[in-house]
Amino acid sequence: MATASIIIIGNEILSGKTQDVNVQFLANELAKLGIHLREVRIIADVEQDIIETVNLLRRKYDYVFTTGGIGPTHDDITSSSIAKAFKQKIVINIDAKNQIEEYLNSIGKTMSADHLAMARIPESAELLLNYATGAPGFKIDNVFVMAGVPYIMQAIFEQSKKFIKQEIPILIKSIETDIPEGILARDFAQLQEKYPEIEMGSYPFKDINNFWRTTLSIRGSNMALIDKAMVELELILDNIKNYDVSRK
Amino acid sequence: MATASIIIIGNEILSGKTQDVNVQFLANELAKLGIHLREVRIIADVEQDIIETVNLLRRKYDYVFTTGGIGPTHDDITSSSIAKAFKQKIVINIDAKNQIEEYLNSIGKTMSADHLAMARIPESAELLLNYATGAPGFKIDNVFVMAGVPYIMQAIFEQSKKFIKQEIPILIKSIETDIPEGILARDFAQLQEKYPEIEMGSYPFKDINNFWRTTLSIRGSNMALIDKAMVELELILDNIKNYDVSRK
Repeated sequence: MATASIIIIGNEILSGKTQDVNVQFLANELAKLGIHLREVRIIADVEQDIIETVNLLRRKYDYVFTTGGIGPTHDDITSSSIAKAFKQKIVINIDAKNQIEEYLNSIGKTMSADHLAMARIPESAELLLNYATGAPGFKIDNVFVMAGVPYIMQAIFEQSKKFIKQEIPILIKSIETDIPEGILARDFAQLQEKYPEIEMGSYPFKDINNFWRTTLSIRGSNMALIDKAMVELELILDNIKNYDVSRK
Repeated sequence: MATASIIIIGNEILSGKTQDVNVQFLANELAKLGIHLREVRIIADVEQDIIETVNLLRRKYDYVFTTGGIGPTHDDITSSSIAKAFKQKIVINIDAKNQIEEYLNSIGKTMSADHLAMARIPESAELLLNYATGAPGFKIDNVFVMAGVPYIMQAIFEQSKKFIKQEIPILIKSIETDIPEGILARDFAQLQEKYPEIEMGSYPFKDINNFWRTTLSIRGSNMALIDKAMVELELILDNIKNYDVSRK
């Protein structure tokens, strides 16, 4: 079973300034690739924290994805911190420089020393092209380093896919019901016990009319098993409803 | 300097099913209270992971906030895991039971064995009332355990505030510019060096007309210093603009 973790690097998330949307995007993309996302850490733009977190998680999971901190300003310290995590030099990568220059020229701008900072990449890293804004991400060992701006991150992730081995996709089926969690919990738990290979979750929410409803979801890699469990779940919900009606 | 971390407990976030919005809410609330949010971890509904993460972070930070996993279904294992983290028994808390029952009665429902599961609280914990849906969160030592549904989490957080010592609020001032990061980076870095006590960040984004713009933000607890730095930043941006114009 292939596993992954995400490291969101960015004071702007921890300060509350910015709502992260990269986790959900990556979680869904990884599920399609059959990769199990095990944990996410959101950490500050602090060198020692980046080094320690990257070195811990790259040994623990098959893939690590980082977002944020690869721009040209002083708070962009991800690339140099990751070079240190791998005990590598960080150098101007000529291909990265050319890509940044080409993009800047295409929008009528010239390259500054600060733009050049985005071409500094750990020595042994492979570039992950960025067809959105030029400045590439990079892959070093099992760590994929991407931008924080969602639009750019998504462009770089697209280029990361060729380094990821496709596994059996992880699928999810959901059903909504107006039966409260407190009524269906026991039967749902029994169903989960019967099918330990698939993961069942229950999520209450308020609908548009302000009534509580529950989403029950069944998730796993075996579609036949998911379908089978879903048929049983529908039967369980019907039985509860009939019982409720007959009781009244 | 008071510090905090958040633990988001929930397969639904890691699966990509649900977009987390609790981190941004708590980050903003903690900033108002002057608490520095240092890191966030999103972990699965797995007992050992919850125990280890809680025990690590409660020793590392002044406050730990958890969201998720305190409902009545089989995947709700946060309360029992946290009891184990503290090596405590988990018991039916009579006050919690009464609050759940009262809420259920108020909406014309009766209490089931599954509802009662939500009254199971670690022995020494103090309840955090939930005026939204009855079933309370709880506080044990410096760990605040809250629901995952944002509306309920916010109600429980409101009740947590009385246990949090108000510090000097952390404030943020931002300015938007059409000067690209690559042009302003050097001057902005010099400004940051001049004011090490406050935190300066640069965040590019695409505006509604699809043009790139940059938000520059200055953050800290000393409003006079933030204002002073902001005046200098505005001057820097004006100078860059004038230089650009004179060059053309």
